[in-house]
Amino acid sequence: MRGAPAVSLVGGTGMSALTVDYRNLLAIDEDEDGVDPERLDGDLGSRFRVAHRNVERARRSGSMGFLDLPGATEAPARIRRAAAGLHGRFDDFVVLGIGGSALGTRTLRDALGAGDPTFGARDAGGPHPRLHVADNIDPHSIGTLLDRLDMRRTFFNVVSKSGSTTETLAQYLVVAERLAREVGRDRAREHLLFTTDPERGPLRALAEAAGIPTLPVPGNVGGRFSVLSAVGLFPAAAAGLDVTAVLRGAARMERRCRTDELTRNPAGVVATLLYRADVECGQRVHVFMPYCDRLRSFALWVQQLWGESLGKAAGLGGRPAATGPTPLPAAGATDQHSLLQLFMEGPADKVVCFVTVDAADDPVPIGKAPASLPALEFPEGHTLNHLIAIEHAATAAALRTRSRPNLTVRLARLDAEALGELILLFQAATVYAGFLYGVDPLTQPGVELGKRYVHGLLGRPGYHPPGMEEANHPWQV
Amino acid sequence: MRGAPAVSLVGGTGMSALTVDYRNLLAIDEDEDGVDPERLDGDLGSRFRVAHRNVERARRSGSMGFLDLPGATEAPARIRRAAAGLHGRFDDFVVLGIGGSALGTRTLRDALGAGDPTFGARDAGGPHPRLHVADNIDPHSIGTLLDRLDMRRTFFNVVSKSGSTTETLAQYLVVAERLAREVGRDRAREHLLFTTDPERGPLRALAEAAGIPTLPVPGNVGGRFSVLSAVGLFPAAAAGLDVTAVLRGAARMERRCRTDELTRNPAGVVATLLYRADVECGQRVHVFMPYCDRLRSFALWVQQLWGESLGKAAGLGGRPAATGPTPLPAAGATDQHSLLQLFMEGPADKVVCFVTVDAADDPVPIGKAPASLPALEFPEGHTLNHLIAIEHAATAAALRTRSRPNLTVRLARLDAEALGELILLFQAATVYAGFLYGVDPLTQPGVELGKRYVHGLLGRPGYHPPGMEEANHPWQV
Repeated sequence: MRGAPAVSLVGGTGMSALTVDYRNLLAIDEDEDGVDPERLDGDLGSRFRVAHRNVERARRSGSMGFLDLPGATEAPARIRRAAAGLHGRFDDFVVLGIGGSALGTRTLRDALGAGDPTFGARDAGGPHPRLHVADNIDPHSIGTLLDRLDMRRTFFNVVSKSGSTTETLAQYLVVAERLAREVGRDRAREHLLFTTDPERGPLRALAEAAGIPTLPVPGNVGGRFSVLSAVGLFPAAAAGLDVTAVLRGAARMERRCRTDELTRNPAGVVATLLYRADVECGQRVHVFMPYCDRLRSFALWVQQLWGESLGKAAGLGGRPAATGPTPLPAAGATDQHSLLQLFMEGPADKVVCFVTVDAADDPVPIGKAPASLPALEFPEGHTLNHLIAIEHAATAAALRTRSRPNLTVRLARLDAEALGELILLFQAATVYAGFLYGVDPLTQPGVELGKRYVHGLLGRPGYHPPGMEEANHPWQV
Repeated sequence: MRGAPAVSLVGGTGMSALTVDYRNLLAIDEDEDGVDPERLDGDLGSRFRVAHRNVERARRSGSMGFLDLPGATEAPARIRRAAAGLHGRFDDFVVLGIGGSALGTRTLRDALGAGDPTFGARDAGGPHPRLHVADNIDPHSIGTLLDRLDMRRTFFNVVSKSGSTTETLAQYLVVAERLAREVGRDRAREHLLFTTDPERGPLRALAEAAGIPTLPVPGNVGGRFSVLSAVGLFPAAAAGLDVTAVLRGAARMERRCRTDELTRNPAGVVATLLYRADVECGQRVHVFMPYCDRLRSFALWVQQLWGESLGKAAGLGGRPAATGPTPLPAAGATDQHSLLQLFMEGPADKVVCFVTVDAADDPVPIGKAPASLPALEFPEGHTLNHLIAIEHAATAAALRTRSRPNLTVRLARLDAEALGELILLFQAATVYAGFLYGVDPLTQPGVELGKRYVHGLLGRPGYHPPGMEEANHPWQV
């Protein structure tokens, strides 16, 4: 394996924009820390092969629906038609949703929407609606947002797979009252679409009762794996983003992940090496650090995907130990001035997964330094594009020098296709990692207790969950 | 101690808006996990007393300058005058800075600026400039921001304590060229102010050479402790925020922290109990989770403060072990749908520090649920304000039920005074924790290696840091 030629980046049709560079996780020379490269074709390769086989088996049994979304044609066509119907009719498009119903949409908008937190594209047909994602029940945020909008020109997409998410239903009830007041109860349905389970749940029932249009989330696609379903694609398409290209990129990555040969499967490399760093070296904090502001939301999306999928009380087959790495989003170069000190000198309990973007279109030139700035060595002709690339390279090298492992997911450019590749890379890596850790990556049983307490507190005056004291206890200062 | 009366919230003059509730870190009943409350007056109280004495000693020797900022009068007056001079003359105010030069300003703006990421207040004198914080060198972000601004109506505050921060100087050189082009080289200085060390550094030298006005960062105030100096107060005042009230709140908390009695010192409680959870129980991930969108930036500010101050290779007195908790920012209720699964069922390596805001002014009523939404129990008259309070209470109780420790910093309201209290609480807790961990909380030696590599890569074509390979190596897929 040592000295093997660089593998081809062509996966399926067209050139992939994505490379995983894992050099800084390997012990290439005798005296280095890290994984012996021989193990990639040895025990680690074998373990990955088993995980890959389990994912393929689960896929055939129908539980890995997200892997089939990129190749779908009918559903995306329906989504695009629904989105096209809003063009010109609405100025603002608000997603009401939380967790997996919000993070994917934010990822698409922020990565592809010119860095504008209320992006809406302009094309020959005029401006697309601005895309807002209301991902909390903070009364100040919701109140401020709704006060700014003209209800007559605003469309609301209520997104909940189960149809019973308390926060999302509360948002909807706030909005429903405003719509009734400002556009009339009869016309409210023209401002609404529910994205929910095709067959069950309170939102589905309400839609049927009230004649509100819907789009389905396939039954075998869970919330945090749903960005390439109507959950993410409908809002993105409404804002004028190229969802077809996102799917094309995702399909390319899905094809690249069909091999069970570890060193040829990019998601396999990410999953296996992060898993191994945790269980063999106690590197249980997995940092996701893009050097690109437009990917800050992507880091939050990966955080949910990785954390909620792998953080489990008991493994498959009844393994008792609680497992799960802690995913930490960070932003380069910004957090070199916040977190790097801890990464360099603190406990050796972290692996950093960088994401970089090569493209240097729209270079921002750094002006000539005046003579009175002697400490500064900016040779003429530098750009911010060059500087941020250097900052990543220097940080990765400095971490490596201090035996702090890291890998880099490199995008040749940040466009819809490349983003699709990136999304599917981490979705596939997550389910591989689930089988490596021995947990079911598709569930989230640990959040039920908190939901029961919320329902108790909402429904019954005077109810207190066990262990919850009256406010006036002595243990406060 | 058991059953002691609730301590008074009055600290110094006026009523404090801030309470630290640490009930969910204690073993109140026999069969509970957590700290035996007797230890608060016993060994933990004694350890805190030593840490408090060390901080007081360091303060007398002049190295804890941040503790004296709230009581200053001359510097804030000068800052307010400088800010007042911009009112009406500029539409936009841009901070060029990174890390400690940006996070405090973002915290002030986002907490107090109505949740608007480009807030500028309006008063009798007309609108204050909108406040932007450029905290990265991402060419896309910087280019997009500058393209949107009218240089003739934009003011730039370059912030760097050392005056030699590469990213900030690069931003400045980009802006300087634009200013020269669009307002003329002679008039550029009217659009600039440097906030930097009063005596040394390249920015100081450049300011003197070019006649650019400056504000000082006191020599004994480090970047991440500088929000209450000109670093944070000048931009906040320029945007029309009430910096005097912020200082008043901070002064109140500073007075509350003068006692070395653990159970009466709010910052002492936070520092001692988080430290103890780490070193005794391996709870080394410290989650900072406000249930208030306006405090999301605050969580990032605490993350830098806690992580960079406590993450150190060697302790005072030559202790060899790398220490430092990993600070993880989170957002309630949003991240109940992202991170809570991991917190509840994953490894028991976390303590959650919640921050809540009681105030229910501007309630957002939740409309009546239609009959076709049977699964939903929203009794009439609920508000989003009530719901978010319930979500916090339920989450804290559920974590407690699963033996996952947590504490809550409760604000009676979110205004400038309360924010000042919150800021000083965590600054004081950080230096107490430094002495508890046995590290110097005021330094960041671990970032130097990366900076050397950046300078090498910037200055010398063909230079490669050790361990950094050519791009075309085989370890990529």
